[in-house]
Amino acid sequence: MIDVDNALNIINENTKKLPLEKKDILSCLNKILAEDIYSKDDLPPFDKSAMDGYAIKSDDTRNCDAENAAEFEIKGSIKAGDYCEDELKSGEAFKIMTGAPLPKGADAVIEIEKVEVKGSILKVSQIVNKDNNVVKLGEETKVGELALNRGSKIRPVEIGLLASLGYSSVNVYKSPTVALIITGDELVSIDSKLKRGKIRNSNEYSLKALIKNLGAKVLSLGVIKDDKDNLREKIKYALENADIVVSSGGASVGDYDFIDDLLKEIGADIKFTSVAIKPGKPVTFATYEEKLFFSLPGNPLSLITTFQELVKPAIEKMMGKQFENKGEFPVILMEDFKAKIGRKKYIYVEIKEHDGKYYAYKVGSQSSNHLMTMSRSNGIIIIPEKCANVKAGEVLNGKFIL
Amino acid sequence: MIDVDNALNIINENTKKLPLEKKDILSCLNKILAEDIYSKDDLPPFDKSAMDGYAIKSDDTRNCDAENAAEFEIKGSIKAGDYCEDELKSGEAFKIMTGAPLPKGADAVIEIEKVEVKGSILKVSQIVNKDNNVVKLGEETKVGELALNRGSKIRPVEIGLLASLGYSSVNVYKSPTVALIITGDELVSIDSKLKRGKIRNSNEYSLKALIKNLGAKVLSLGVIKDDKDNLREKIKYALENADIVVSSGGASVGDYDFIDDLLKEIGADIKFTSVAIKPGKPVTFATYEEKLFFSLPGNPLSLITTFQELVKPAIEKMMGKQFENKGEFPVILMEDFKAKIGRKKYIYVEIKEHDGKYYAYKVGSQSSNHLMTMSRSNGIIIIPEKCANVKAGEVLNGKFIL
Repeated sequence: MIDVDNALNIINENTKKLPLEKKDILSCLNKILAEDIYSKDDLPPFDKSAMDGYAIKSDDTRNCDAENAAEFEIKGSIKAGDYCEDELKSGEAFKIMTGAPLPKGADAVIEIEKVEVKGSILKVSQIVNKDNNVVKLGEETKVGELALNRGSKIRPVEIGLLASLGYSSVNVYKSPTVALIITGDELVSIDSKLKRGKIRNSNEYSLKALIKNLGAKVLSLGVIKDDKDNLREKIKYALENADIVVSSGGASVGDYDFIDDLLKEIGADIKFTSVAIKPGKPVTFATYEEKLFFSLPGNPLSLITTFQELVKPAIEKMMGKQFENKGEFPVILMEDFKAKIGRKKYIYVEIKEHDGKYYAYKVGSQSSNHLMTMSRSNGIIIIPEKCANVKAGEVLNGKFIL
Repeated sequence: MIDVDNALNIINENTKKLPLEKKDILSCLNKILAEDIYSKDDLPPFDKSAMDGYAIKSDDTRNCDAENAAEFEIKGSIKAGDYCEDELKSGEAFKIMTGAPLPKGADAVIEIEKVEVKGSILKVSQIVNKDNNVVKLGEETKVGELALNRGSKIRPVEIGLLASLGYSSVNVYKSPTVALIITGDELVSIDSKLKRGKIRNSNEYSLKALIKNLGAKVLSLGVIKDDKDNLREKIKYALENADIVVSSGGASVGDYDFIDDLLKEIGADIKFTSVAIKPGKPVTFATYEEKLFFSLPGNPLSLITTFQELVKPAIEKMMGKQFENKGEFPVILMEDFKAKIGRKKYIYVEIKEHDGKYYAYKVGSQSSNHLMTMSRSNGIIIIPEKCANVKAGEVLNGKFIL
């Protein structure tokens, strides 16, 4: 049995980023950019009005005040998308709309709300500073400047930025295909009535949802009978057709838990078979060529916990993210929690925020079967390996679950 | 000009949850459950072994210790999915796998690692308590019990729980269709070279990405020329074919900002035309029958900010979520920030966490054109309406952006 940190190190060492693929930018949402992006233009590509108003020479207003208005002759109007060929001279103004390019000779814009207009005469009764309401050419970025770094997450703002820079497609890391092998002769389909000894297959659905939320692809082989020959074929097929294989059940020490034997038989390199995590423990991690195999426990809570703590970082790394498990913060226990020394314990709780501090409350039995408990929780607190019972008032690390 | 809280109240009053639709559970991921879910079964549906081990009568071990082992005759083996018809008698044991139902008469399971087996004889050298390693019938939930509340978010754990309860589909609130109308004669397509006075259409892409992340549907009418007749037709079409219409640009006071006029002409009920928000301000909100119309400013940063603060809560409410904008927490300023009294100011910053506290650092110009600034940020700090400049060391509310 190895501890969680060691397990994560071994998984990290054996996980590589997937190759790149070029995709249209909207398909890249929430993915990781796999190239540096340089600006092809100065942005904005011209001095631009930030307001609806009048473009003038600022110098013409240097002696203005409420009693001494400067007068300008309005020569025309420039709207966004127009380009004015005329050069503005002293004493002249152009009406100008937000986003429109300043005419040559103008160096400031005064807002429409702050002027008086009579016919073609504009009156300005205040000093207007140079560059007032002007977005200068290249103010946001200049030709050839690095606009986005490789490794950035592509959020809606980056989608907009890429569009403004003229990139309709960019390179991102491919999303892995995750194959699912669900074992357990006790499993019946979701629409079945429960007969004696049977329970419904829920793990396949939880796993599909977890993987979907990560933006990876699922190849589910469904529920596989606990038959060695059949299982061997499915494992081979999964390793050939996916980047990561996740199995649920069959990883314990029971007479029908074949997964570890089969992995050895087909020549997979088994890295570990047990992790000091609760809920969890019987987790096998193996590699087969560049492929990863995770055999997770069949108990629903153990399955989801070990997936989130051990498999998720590998899927994310393949997609170009940092290999990490961040988001932990200090949480104050509001109740006692029982625990035993020996494994890192993930306790599902309700975390409430108050005045910038976080507090943990019990939500029910932490039995590894209880999806109901997890469903009532919005976070976990983590009791370290070497600690046992913890008491109300103590502070532990915790995090929210999604 | 009304303040942000008033604007949100008016939007909330005019936004209704959409009707329900029944969908298969995996399609409900991240949606809001629109019905109470009751358990159809006791879960687990039988007393179940939590370990690989031996099912026995606990009473047979009452005098056991290291020197006085109790001996049992192993009568057979029960694997998950089996159902044992025999009744276990005193002095008898059944080998039992994790998840398998206990045979009648057994009341405890001792782990396989803690016993000695010779042929068909099992030796136990410790006291085993009643219910040891047994998950009791109905321990997780009982027939007819409320398992999930209407209004719950359907996360991966809820998908698993619904599957285990035998629900292959459930009722959720429909996702709204959001129509997009992008105005601005300065806009050219993403693949165009920039000619004089033109910039690329980025708002359509940012909006599509923002809406996609909320799980709503997009109906984009693309870039519409600033032509009153054309625009009127598009607005009508959008209101007929979507639940919410979002326009970008054309909401200012310029000569070519027709949106408000057209909304009046077609009989829409204009609720406000200006909000004390920065970046932002020229935001029009109108209703037309049950439909909502948001006219947002065309500057990219203003657009994204007003969408997140004003439109997102409405989209989420239609989908059954609470109308709220939570996730704010105290942030300590590490630098001075300039601001003017009068509007609620959203400043894009980098928020760093250290020892459970959050600190805000500048990332660049807050000009409402600068997507680059927003792209460098991971959060915002909020300077209230009545405040102006703020100084390093002061504490403001902030939140992360996604």
